[in-house]
Amino acid sequence: MKLYQQVLQLKERRRGFHLVTEEIVRALPQMAELQTGLCQVFIRHTSASLTINENADATVRKDFETFFTRTVPENFPYEHDTEGPDDMPAHLKAAMLGSSVLIPIRQGRLALGTWQGVYLCEHRNHGGPRSLVVTAWGE
Amino acid sequence: MKLYQQVLQLKERRRGFHLVTEEIVRALPQMAELQTGLCQVFIRHTSASLTINENADATVRKDFETFFTRTVPENFPYEHDTEGPDDMPAHLKAAMLGSSVLIPIRQGRLALGTWQGVYLCEHRNHGGPRSLVVTAWGE
Amino acid sequence: MKLYQQVLQLKERRRGFHLVTEEIVRALPQMAELQTGLCQVFIRHTSASLTINENADATVRKDFETFFTRTVPENFPYEHDTEGPDDMPAHLKAAMLGSSVLIPIRQGRLALGTWQGVYLCEHRNHGGPRSLVVTAWGE
Repeated sequence: MKLYQQVLQLKERRRGFHLVTEEIVRALPQMAELQTGLCQVFIRHTSASLTINENADATVRKDFETFFTRTVPENFPYEHDTEGPDDMPAHLKAAMLGSSVLIPIRQGRLALGTWQGVYLCEHRNHGGPRSLVVTAWGE
Repeated sequence: MKLYQQVLQLKERRRGFHLVTEEIVRALPQMAELQTGLCQVFIRHTSASLTINENADATVRKDFETFFTRTVPENFPYEHDTEGPDDMPAHLKAAMLGSSVLIPIRQGRLALGTWQGVYLCEHRNHGGPRSLVVTAWGE
Repeated sequence: MKLYQQVLQLKERRRGFHLVTEEIVRALPQMAELQTGLCQVFIRHTSASLTINENADATVRKDFETFFTRTVPENFPYEHDTEGPDDMPAHLKAAMLGSSVLIPIRQGRLALGTWQGVYLCEHRNHGGPRSLVVTAWGE
């Protein structure tokens, strides 16, 4: 069994949902050596998150932003409010969506479904660059 | 360390939450050889999801459907609406619940708690068959 | 590749969100031998969950409790209500937050971001002790 791990720095994105599948694949070219395995992507932040969803129509990603901003409101009596009105909602959205994705590898490639891509979910207005850890293992 | 991987096709289910633990276990009988390990189940779709919850009382699964349909409404000004009113809510529910579950293996069996089972969460009215990838590794 | 697994019993906590990172690290000291790897923590219950979020300001954890209790109400026409009004909401919150976390290991330590910690999310009023399984693997 082989195991590869790489830190991946993503440049700052605006608030919203962004496809980053290709950046992840490029970060760990050794994935191509694995006939069977798994790849985990982990985000080292608490106000941004990772999820897997539709990779084709950009309106899906816009609807994600609209829906989550309505469901996790900024005008709510949060106690933790010193970092601005977008901060506590960002923590809550990050928990709902999750800090990592785990994807099977088959024949050297991510075995995603036809319509699946990895989203970076940026929940802050000015979140800055984001640090990921990509780990793949298998045979 | 051993690693096993298998594609598992699930037949079409009606919209709602369905226990599929037994189908997963049957898909990968080699799991029985692992004294210690992990098993991941991944769904290759963006409008159905996987989660772990109560395995005994079917009303729990009915309440899941009622709650998530209220929380992620169909009558909402989504931009992505060409595939029907159940489509965009399905994407959002899938992101909230997740595209995979990861379960420890002990003595050749899934080390689930007494009341835990794996749910296929079918968020479309007519989602069709669903493709999973089951991967187990360990010693 | 090495693989270590340990059951970890957590003492009863009051309903709410609790930092348990240190207890997890102490449960599996062999993690220190892994230069590169992953650590999974799994909860064997359906009315408590695990997530990763802010580790510094306790008001974040209070806001989590307030927000999730508002979003998943107790006064809702659930069919599954025989175990008390906090039971079905606990199942739903557990599904939204997830039954496990998966964290990279680098140089013998959890590669969490500066502000990340592992939360035990106790959704019941009297949930009792909680059983976790901690698994780490790597080189």
